[in-house]
Amino acid sequence: MELLENREALLVKIHEQMHEKRYLHTLGVAETAKQLAIQYGADPKKAELAGLLHDYCKCWESSRMKELLLQHDHPEDLLDADKSLWHSFAGAIAVQEEVGVTDEEILDAIRYHTSGRPQMTLLEKVVCLADYIEPNRTFPGVDELRKGAETELESTLQQAFGGTIKSLVKRNQRVYPLTILAYNDLIQK
Amino acid sequence: MELLENREALLVKIHEQMHEKRYLHTLGVAETAKQLAIQYGADPKKAELAGLLHDYCKCWESSRMKELLLQHDHPEDLLDADKSLWHSFAGAIAVQEEVGVTDEEILDAIRYHTSGRPQMTLLEKVVCLADYIEPNRTFPGVDELRKGAETELESTLQQAFGGTIKSLVKRNQRVYPLTILAYNDLIQK
Repeated sequence: MELLENREALLVKIHEQMHEKRYLHTLGVAETAKQLAIQYGADPKKAELAGLLHDYCKCWESSRMKELLLQHDHPEDLLDADKSLWHSFAGAIAVQEEVGVTDEEILDAIRYHTSGRPQMTLLEKVVCLADYIEPNRTFPGVDELRKGAETELESTLQQAFGGTIKSLVKRNQRVYPLTILAYNDLIQK
Repeated sequence: MELLENREALLVKIHEQMHEKRYLHTLGVAETAKQLAIQYGADPKKAELAGLLHDYCKCWESSRMKELLLQHDHPEDLLDADKSLWHSFAGAIAVQEEVGVTDEEILDAIRYHTSGRPQMTLLEKVVCLADYIEPNRTFPGVDELRKGAETELESTLQQAFGGTIKSLVKRNQRVYPLTILAYNDLIQK
């Protein structure tokens, strides 16, 4: 992970993309992902780097994300889905182009950190769960997820996706189909 | 609807497939579907017949449903999904073979009455909602759906699917992907 060797330059670059609150969240996800990786046997450096870069695009204008997505492969239902899904797929493209990330495992961890997908890799699970439970998160139920994460990666991630699904349905919002496939897949195991 | 002209013989045939409680539910769905069809401009006879036949297979052994499904086209994820989904797809086959139903609209209303699907026909929506709100139903929230059904077919059906999705997730059960597509589609409208 050469990128982590010049950590300060990387952090400056990331910080430039987002407001302060998002940057603090980013640092929280990176640290939590590293810890979960150590705990569950994923690569801690890859987890930390994916955590640092997972929301690279999150604060961009949606038009900028859309432009990037239109220039590259993306799921065919993505641009009709809620815009909150766009930054993960656009982010995986942006960090290749702007940061020079080439590791496919890291790129997939960024790409699927919001939606999830069936048969997520260990690294994807770690980064996705870190995004739910990093210390700055305060949503109802987050402490149960933090407790679950101490011993159960998959069922805790399933609970996290389940919470997202219930929350969306309560608010009469659409649920991205890939998230249901991820949720179902974690139950099956 | 020739089948409705020999109503008594049809009811006997349906009654033979199921226990008493399911039969009473069947009569409730048929009557409710007919009323909703009149209200929303679907064909009342088709709605009544689809209602009478919608649970034709529901009380069969799952092995019998599976055998029927394996002999005919069915969604590739169906046999891995919860068995409670099987009777709708198996039912659409069975009522062709055993009752002689050939009307594709009625068959689709039976086929998708549990899962829903994107771009449901008016008849499918009517039968599906009737299945949720017929007078014998007692689940929490059913009275809100009944009230909604008085004025709003699509948003009420979306609420009904939403309730099913939340209930499944609360019980850590899988959600059939077609149901999410149906739910999302009803929100988009």
